[in-house]
Amino acid sequence: MGERMNELFLAKAIKTEVRCKRETIKARGDFSALQKGEERVFDFGNHFVGNIKIRFSLGKGCFDAPFTVDLFFAENKRELAAKNMQYTGGMSEAWIQKERVRIHELPFVLELPTRYACRFVCVELSAVSTEYSVCVNEVEMEERTSAFGEVDCVGNTPLEKRIDEVSLRTLRSCMQEVFEDGPKRDRRLWLGDLRLEALVNYETYCNYELVKKCLYLFAAMTNERGLCKGCIFTTPSVYVPQGDMFDYPLLFISALLEYYENAKDEQTAKELFPTAVKQLQLIADFFDQDGKLKENENVGWVHIDWSEEIDRVACGQAVYVYAAKALKKLSVALGETLRWIDEEIEQKSAALQAYYDEERGVFVGKGGRISYAQNVWSVLAGVLTVEKRAAVLQRLATYENAVKPTSPYMYHYYVQALCDCGLFSTAKETILWYWGKMVEDGADTFYEVFNPDNLQESPYGQGGALLNSYCHAWSCTPAYFFRKYAL
Amino acid sequence: MGERMNELFLAKAIKTEVRCKRETIKARGDFSALQKGEERVFDFGNHFVGNIKIRFSLGKGCFDAPFTVDLFFAENKRELAAKNMQYTGGMSEAWIQKERVRIHELPFVLELPTRYACRFVCVELSAVSTEYSVCVNEVEMEERTSAFGEVDCVGNTPLEKRIDEVSLRTLRSCMQEVFEDGPKRDRRLWLGDLRLEALVNYETYCNYELVKKCLYLFAAMTNERGLCKGCIFTTPSVYVPQGDMFDYPLLFISALLEYYENAKDEQTAKELFPTAVKQLQLIADFFDQDGKLKENENVGWVHIDWSEEIDRVACGQAVYVYAAKALKKLSVALGETLRWIDEEIEQKSAALQAYYDEERGVFVGKGGRISYAQNVWSVLAGVLTVEKRAAVLQRLATYENAVKPTSPYMYHYYVQALCDCGLFSTAKETILWYWGKMVEDGADTFYEVFNPDNLQESPYGQGGALLNSYCHAWSCTPAYFFRKYAL
Repeated sequence: MGERMNELFLAKAIKTEVRCKRETIKARGDFSALQKGEERVFDFGNHFVGNIKIRFSLGKGCFDAPFTVDLFFAENKRELAAKNMQYTGGMSEAWIQKERVRIHELPFVLELPTRYACRFVCVELSAVSTEYSVCVNEVEMEERTSAFGEVDCVGNTPLEKRIDEVSLRTLRSCMQEVFEDGPKRDRRLWLGDLRLEALVNYETYCNYELVKKCLYLFAAMTNERGLCKGCIFTTPSVYVPQGDMFDYPLLFISALLEYYENAKDEQTAKELFPTAVKQLQLIADFFDQDGKLKENENVGWVHIDWSEEIDRVACGQAVYVYAAKALKKLSVALGETLRWIDEEIEQKSAALQAYYDEERGVFVGKGGRISYAQNVWSVLAGVLTVEKRAAVLQRLATYENAVKPTSPYMYHYYVQALCDCGLFSTAKETILWYWGKMVEDGADTFYEVFNPDNLQESPYGQGGALLNSYCHAWSCTPAYFFRKYAL
Repeated sequence: MGERMNELFLAKAIKTEVRCKRETIKARGDFSALQKGEERVFDFGNHFVGNIKIRFSLGKGCFDAPFTVDLFFAENKRELAAKNMQYTGGMSEAWIQKERVRIHELPFVLELPTRYACRFVCVELSAVSTEYSVCVNEVEMEERTSAFGEVDCVGNTPLEKRIDEVSLRTLRSCMQEVFEDGPKRDRRLWLGDLRLEALVNYETYCNYELVKKCLYLFAAMTNERGLCKGCIFTTPSVYVPQGDMFDYPLLFISALLEYYENAKDEQTAKELFPTAVKQLQLIADFFDQDGKLKENENVGWVHIDWSEEIDRVACGQAVYVYAAKALKKLSVALGETLRWIDEEIEQKSAALQAYYDEERGVFVGKGGRISYAQNVWSVLAGVLTVEKRAAVLQRLATYENAVKPTSPYMYHYYVQALCDCGLFSTAKETILWYWGKMVEDGADTFYEVFNPDNLQESPYGQGGALLNSYCHAWSCTPAYFFRKYAL
């Protein structure tokens, strides 16, 4: 039965056609002849995703031997500057967008089979005969994105406008045949990223088909128990990695709810409603009789944020309540009956509330640790009165040792929590500070990793600046906040 | 007038269609899964030229990132062993048959656009995620050669048979859409190499169209005075390098004569006869009133051999007489009248004879230097009686300080001179010794460079073993001597 539904959903996902725009852009640069060892940087003027074509011709002399070009594609200046770093971390170095190509003909049109995410193309003439020089005549890209149409920027100041512009660009480059997390590296459909990209998409490009396709993919590619995977690979075929997640499957419920609210596609929402219900039910197994998420249980990977210091059990409790409330809202909207949902919310909320420390005015995790992650999710779960929730966020800021957000993903939920509590000016300040710092760093798109105190930070080990994704889905939400809350 | 003829000849060359066989060969090797940093060597069992296809599939695990393979194609074991050498010489490193390819899909069929000359393919998994391993499932080549049909080997001993086999293989791999000098590096049509390849071809594969095409190309691509170039590039278009040669244009005459004698194609021979005449006439300008090649004249590059120590003026004198005699023979065969040829031969022969030192019994160059090159060409020019010529070659062997041949090309003419003088057993001994040493070195094809006293020798500088061509046209003539003289 479950298997048959999965097949049906996969068929629906595949049938949901997502068109990609294909427009050609030419890079600017110095097109004079190159000698051995020389390099040129060509600039598309903005971040693009697509296929690259480079035209070479003979400079001066006689073409008496093949030559070699070393190509490096950089998403931004920070990555371009890292070109000659050695990567010794644990990820596949093959993510680094570099190629060495031997060319046996001139003139020659090099059509690279790989898709790149870049603003800059560096061409180095790494091996050549002494008898001739080589010209790069043209560097062009056939852009690929499923973000159609132009969206007008919003913002009252140049910084606000720029943050909006960069957010839109980030989303545009991540919108491919699915919502990718990063068009340079990973290139996967992640549930957590999808949910945020969809939120921005509803306010901007409004490509509902793309969201629908992704939702069907997640509903199709569950584990044997019916739990959605955290991510899906979609090329060359559709497949999933080993291992389950805790928080991302729960966010399927919110993603479906928001899709229904925005796209008004009742048919899809109704068809995927049982999948949403299933997510909550499967995760419910990890709770004890008192409605508390069990310690030391193999609940799967609770992502929340990158930090190792956060109390993932406490955070998981909050995300569950948040998801249960979303499921209730969805059931009401669709006219579906879930008799057990109120009791479920009540019991789990009570257990969540036990983390609240009246005296300190915030939610406190294991060992008395205070973190933004736990407090943000507890606020989003809405277990206190709105006033108390706002107070929690305000008190949080006074704890200097509180574990701060370490990723744009966590910053998003922090800003969301501020908005939920009506703390709009703090929300806006946070955006202008955090995302503004990336703009200051020269961003055309927002990064996967951004620590204003360490601009070289990477979770990927030595030389990780080469592996970081500088255009990452989960960073694109300022454009959503600006529009949704008229910040 | 000259320009119009050149165009006509180029049109004839292009119209002379040379078919290339395309057969698929599969390499043997270990097809078990590779981890990061591991490599496998696949073996086609013999030297082949063609396009390569490699099939990859997933070993174990989840394909969560692209991977990189480093490929190295080696003509033989000697080149394979040089794989990790650094080349710092002056030629284009891009001649080295190596590639780095990033692969984003599994299973994947890698179809490389470049043509390779190789027996061995080394595949190294240079970058990969820790989550999976990769299998090489198949390494195949679509062979390209214009040598059709199987030729039975000759020889009385295993060594003789092997030398013949390796000669044939060398020619086969060099026979492409033109006679190439080396299918790995250079890949040009050289007049000196063409002449030797054609000689072997007449005794073996008998592809007359291929010779015809090459002769028309040389007749078409002359310099502004009508002198044939030493070499021609034929891809991506037909063009020639700067600079003229002295000895190779003269060999056009012999090449045309031998084509006529073997292919019996009177029409082509008659059409190209004026070009042959022109070569002698143009080179004649470099001689003084007494029929002696002028010293310090800019006569172009007199190749003869690689050694710097040979007297190129004395050698040039001999090659001229040799060519003049070939032209006379060609004119007689075609019934063409060249009233001046006998006087020309007589005058230049007299000047050549002046180099003969009666007392020492050999031809002696500048500063009393004795070289194989000068003596071989003087013997080939036939200015002494046959008995005296044989004696020259025998005396030559007694001069321990005589400048020895330094290339297979010069060894060819030495063996030819021995055959011309009826010294067949020395001719055969020379072949069994020199080419036999290459067989001992494990050759499947004969090399461009071979010094039995220094197996690593290369004229191309530091790390030159990577640049040497291990399948080189001018080394393939034992198969001609074995058949022509029944050695």
